[in-house]
Amino acid sequence: MTRIGIIGGTGYTGGELARILCTHPGVEIASMTSRQNTGRKVSDVHPYLKGYVDLEFTESVGDVDLAFVATPHGVAMKEVPGLMDSGIKCIDLSGDYRFRDIPTYELWYGHRHSDPEHLSKAVYGLPELFRDRIKGADLVANPGCYATASILACAPLMKAGIAEPDIDIDAKSGTSGAGMVPSERTHHAHCGETVIPYSVGTHRHTPEIEMALRMFSGEEPEVLFIPTLVPIVRGILSTCYIRLNRDLREDEVQDIYRKQYEGERFVHYADEPSIRDVVASNHAQVGVRSIGRRAVAFGTIDNLVKGASGQAVQCMNLMLGFDEAAGLDMPGLGV
Amino acid sequence: MTRIGIIGGTGYTGGELARILCTHPGVEIASMTSRQNTGRKVSDVHPYLKGYVDLEFTESVGDVDLAFVATPHGVAMKEVPGLMDSGIKCIDLSGDYRFRDIPTYELWYGHRHSDPEHLSKAVYGLPELFRDRIKGADLVANPGCYATASILACAPLMKAGIAEPDIDIDAKSGTSGAGMVPSERTHHAHCGETVIPYSVGTHRHTPEIEMALRMFSGEEPEVLFIPTLVPIVRGILSTCYIRLNRDLREDEVQDIYRKQYEGERFVHYADEPSIRDVVASNHAQVGVRSIGRRAVAFGTIDNLVKGASGQAVQCMNLMLGFDEAAGLDMPGLGV
Amino acid sequence: MTRIGIIGGTGYTGGELARILCTHPGVEIASMTSRQNTGRKVSDVHPYLKGYVDLEFTESVGDVDLAFVATPHGVAMKEVPGLMDSGIKCIDLSGDYRFRDIPTYELWYGHRHSDPEHLSKAVYGLPELFRDRIKGADLVANPGCYATASILACAPLMKAGIAEPDIDIDAKSGTSGAGMVPSERTHHAHCGETVIPYSVGTHRHTPEIEMALRMFSGEEPEVLFIPTLVPIVRGILSTCYIRLNRDLREDEVQDIYRKQYEGERFVHYADEPSIRDVVASNHAQVGVRSIGRRAVAFGTIDNLVKGASGQAVQCMNLMLGFDEAAGLDMPGLGV
Amino acid sequence: MTRIGIIGGTGYTGGELARILCTHPGVEIASMTSRQNTGRKVSDVHPYLKGYVDLEFTESVGDVDLAFVATPHGVAMKEVPGLMDSGIKCIDLSGDYRFRDIPTYELWYGHRHSDPEHLSKAVYGLPELFRDRIKGADLVANPGCYATASILACAPLMKAGIAEPDIDIDAKSGTSGAGMVPSERTHHAHCGETVIPYSVGTHRHTPEIEMALRMFSGEEPEVLFIPTLVPIVRGILSTCYIRLNRDLREDEVQDIYRKQYEGERFVHYADEPSIRDVVASNHAQVGVRSIGRRAVAFGTIDNLVKGASGQAVQCMNLMLGFDEAAGLDMPGLGV
Repeated sequence: MTRIGIIGGTGYTGGELARILCTHPGVEIASMTSRQNTGRKVSDVHPYLKGYVDLEFTESVGDVDLAFVATPHGVAMKEVPGLMDSGIKCIDLSGDYRFRDIPTYELWYGHRHSDPEHLSKAVYGLPELFRDRIKGADLVANPGCYATASILACAPLMKAGIAEPDIDIDAKSGTSGAGMVPSERTHHAHCGETVIPYSVGTHRHTPEIEMALRMFSGEEPEVLFIPTLVPIVRGILSTCYIRLNRDLREDEVQDIYRKQYEGERFVHYADEPSIRDVVASNHAQVGVRSIGRRAVAFGTIDNLVKGASGQAVQCMNLMLGFDEAAGLDMPGLGV
Repeated sequence: MTRIGIIGGTGYTGGELARILCTHPGVEIASMTSRQNTGRKVSDVHPYLKGYVDLEFTESVGDVDLAFVATPHGVAMKEVPGLMDSGIKCIDLSGDYRFRDIPTYELWYGHRHSDPEHLSKAVYGLPELFRDRIKGADLVANPGCYATASILACAPLMKAGIAEPDIDIDAKSGTSGAGMVPSERTHHAHCGETVIPYSVGTHRHTPEIEMALRMFSGEEPEVLFIPTLVPIVRGILSTCYIRLNRDLREDEVQDIYRKQYEGERFVHYADEPSIRDVVASNHAQVGVRSIGRRAVAFGTIDNLVKGASGQAVQCMNLMLGFDEAAGLDMPGLGV
Repeated sequence: MTRIGIIGGTGYTGGELARILCTHPGVEIASMTSRQNTGRKVSDVHPYLKGYVDLEFTESVGDVDLAFVATPHGVAMKEVPGLMDSGIKCIDLSGDYRFRDIPTYELWYGHRHSDPEHLSKAVYGLPELFRDRIKGADLVANPGCYATASILACAPLMKAGIAEPDIDIDAKSGTSGAGMVPSERTHHAHCGETVIPYSVGTHRHTPEIEMALRMFSGEEPEVLFIPTLVPIVRGILSTCYIRLNRDLREDEVQDIYRKQYEGERFVHYADEPSIRDVVASNHAQVGVRSIGRRAVAFGTIDNLVKGASGQAVQCMNLMLGFDEAAGLDMPGLGV
Repeated sequence: MTRIGIIGGTGYTGGELARILCTHPGVEIASMTSRQNTGRKVSDVHPYLKGYVDLEFTESVGDVDLAFVATPHGVAMKEVPGLMDSGIKCIDLSGDYRFRDIPTYELWYGHRHSDPEHLSKAVYGLPELFRDRIKGADLVANPGCYATASILACAPLMKAGIAEPDIDIDAKSGTSGAGMVPSERTHHAHCGETVIPYSVGTHRHTPEIEMALRMFSGEEPEVLFIPTLVPIVRGILSTCYIRLNRDLREDEVQDIYRKQYEGERFVHYADEPSIRDVVASNHAQVGVRSIGRRAVAFGTIDNLVKGASGQAVQCMNLMLGFDEAAGLDMPGLGV
């Protein structure tokens, strides 16, 4: 069994990694680190893992083959260099290794990047678009949750070269996307019976979506991204407003989507993408409608699975030569 | 006291009208009609009205000065002619009298309009934009809930002549907007932990928004309207993506909004419009952000109050010469 | 106009007091205090009060006739003595003045009581049970939210002397009852899709319910109280399991309830008490079912209105000689 | 591979059976029947099963080794005789085969039992309490969702002979327990922001809980069962108020629970049972608190998994000689 470490195991994505990996046929969770919970049983902090993960949180990840780094932005780039230098492959779930372009990172994240060396080798971990690069990577930057849903929804039109560069994305996310630390915005009495747009024009997934879309199109996309908190726990619906640069019938546009994801195990065309169909699974659904030269593309994912830990495991499978779906091959809840 | 009748008192908007009117200082609810509940006590069907409305549902509205018509589309236009001919002023909450242009109505509603005579005299009941016409009207077509939130959000830019005509509207609504009849879409296990876009490109508020925007601009707006069901009961957030036709700083754009609604009792500029701030009240909040030539305007309302019954009462106040805020002058819940 | 002060105006109950009082016909809000927001506009902190409360938060309450004390337990008893000594009537929304019996207070609240002098004159502010005492009071201890719903539900059987003393209360509360400070328990991703029992056997409303029930019965009730957080914002349903000490038919038991609250403006018998029927209003509904000698009594309220600020205003009305329903006389939302 | 049929595959429990069985290592889903959807692709009706279940709904179950009967009460007992006579083992998810005592069934279900022959051989399918009988059974009556949570919570005290017979159960359920057919009670605008007690004293799981508890105790339990709808989709919390017939310390009571479920794969003692820890899994958590002679036992499950389809698969595993956890061995979601 390949030995896996999880750095930053207290938070939602750390727990979710353990939830997925504990039934994975090819790996064992060798260690989970936590600064605040060192010495505590993992199953005391995450009671749902009782009977599945029999470990105590440690300070250091120890001897592992691959490490998931589930620490906040800015912390990850302190962890990765040591791991890489010890020959440990890394999958980073933070934003630290997503931008080849250091000034973009520093502008949007507000601090200097301290590890340009490894950054230059990092691969953006969206398997449906960059599968081959991920296979050969030692360091993968796992995409953001909003970015995953949005890129999957916009990619077919961008790749086909028929999208105008200015795209408006109205993305609705469940509250688990905000992480485990209580805040005013995620206080139930504040957010439980409303929907809240936030970080208008300033959300860090904006340049990430632009970067990814740029990679498979000659265009320079200009994304206006509005995240909106909705009172569900898991799930993202990304609604993308796109102008077409030539005339296409709606069924032609839909065919582009069908073909783009044909054969994919986890991304599917659906006439009416649904969060419930994908929740608790690594699946994503994308759909598109068009009227004249205006198209609306939809993408749905579970933000903690395909939007974070599940996609990270999918990348791990590619990096380690497992079946891409190992440990992830189950349907969404539906209800 | 002016005598008021409510036609179609069983549904959500009928009950909401009674909830508001029962404490109005200048009117008395003289009758509430219901086909399915004729003879039953109103407070048995709507227990929250116990102690406030001591009536039985009747078949006919009887002798009243003004009637609210809270029946479905298609039914209202059968009710209104008789009422008008009896000298009863009418406020229709359905879509039947919103369109001066009959072909547009027939195209989007799928049946013939049977009352073109009164239609030609109907006034669109959005007080902040058409106050003077409402004052003199005998028949008011109360706006749709999505339309109210969207028009209020888009109007300042349209009136100022700085909006491009193609506008994308991503509107999130609570489930009470769908009315009281159970359906698959509003079944809690189906919609309770997800967000559901529906009627993409086909929702009947699309031409209504276009019509209203056309009235105060030389432009022919082309609206792409995507309603999305969110798991809250009351409230709409309408997010409107608008291109500007010239360069303006964000604060200049915001000033246009502030000035448009300055002095209004129920529509307010807010940097961060919030459903909770307006819920259970007739208030609306609008806000706007811009980056370059791209603006995003937000509008929030309680769909049953400013989006339906409260706005209808506001129109009634104008028609009958009451203070415009009579019976409606209280803050939203906040929490 | 009588001048009213609100001490502790930042929190949910402080804001709710202002929301109610701002349309009260007989009083004006003269001041709202806040330590953390001194100098800020009230309507910047509570945007729903814009246009209704044109004040800045102050440090001190100033010259008022009556003050609501909406500060945490332990703080209130530091505020009240000075106010009382200045001749200002007080309504305290904390637990500090609810217990005549100081050892009970000190046992359950974990600190010494520093104001036994005024405590001895405080009246427990549940109007439907202690109306006459409230009328003559200078200091009223406003009941807890859970306590209000539970006492109203249990009182008829206790007063009739037909309840066994051991009562189990399973009370479900919306999250606004926990106040405005974010915590793990009220973090949406934690509580949004589950129900959470807490403080089993240790909640401070336990002795409060026992004390109130003791006041109108010769019995010494022994309450086992289990609060359970449910993912709604406003509302409490208290389900009370009571044994009867003699044989009664269900309709006889229900008659006891009907008669107990006959003529009350805010507490009503309902076969099926509903949170939605009372939410956003000062109304309460109570109902009862029995099978043999086992009865289940239900009580529903809006925890912020009848369970806190609305009931406090009801007490104010009694203390100041206003109509008991002044400023509060409107139905619940229903939907 | 053992061939499995699902009779009544359109509803929530039918879909959930397919969701679980499609990744089970030892069986294949050979057929799914549906009257209303005959001829349609299963994955068109349940889009989350796309890529996992490649079948069309049929009218008849065909040649299978074991059939799950997921039809409504009353229909199941028409289906089972033919299946049994064809040598097909059956697991019935309805209430039709849960009561050995026919008059009890007929009293609570309101119609005659048409299949007393097979009823006499049916085994009640709660593995943690009746494992050995299930192993040898050809017909298993799968327990109700509320009954599962409640019996697991009460069983340790009943088995230990220290519970008084009169037990009050306050059970909170998510809306998926009501099935897929829309109704007023499950209409989101009606139930989305409230909690609704229903079927007080008349819910059919009452005699089922009594029957099961009677089986492992000399006592005749008298259960007062109050189901309450809460606005979540999946999950039950059953809160059981139990009197003890002798003095025990709280830790002694808790030890009884720990020992009862020691070694169980799916039922676990937890100090604070949590729906989120078990949701989307076959796990249950039970806990208990006591003060003097009053105990409160808690049980949490996912009503569609351990409360229905997951438990049915667990029974299938026992009947067919698979590992009891096959296809079910994964943690709850946690978040």
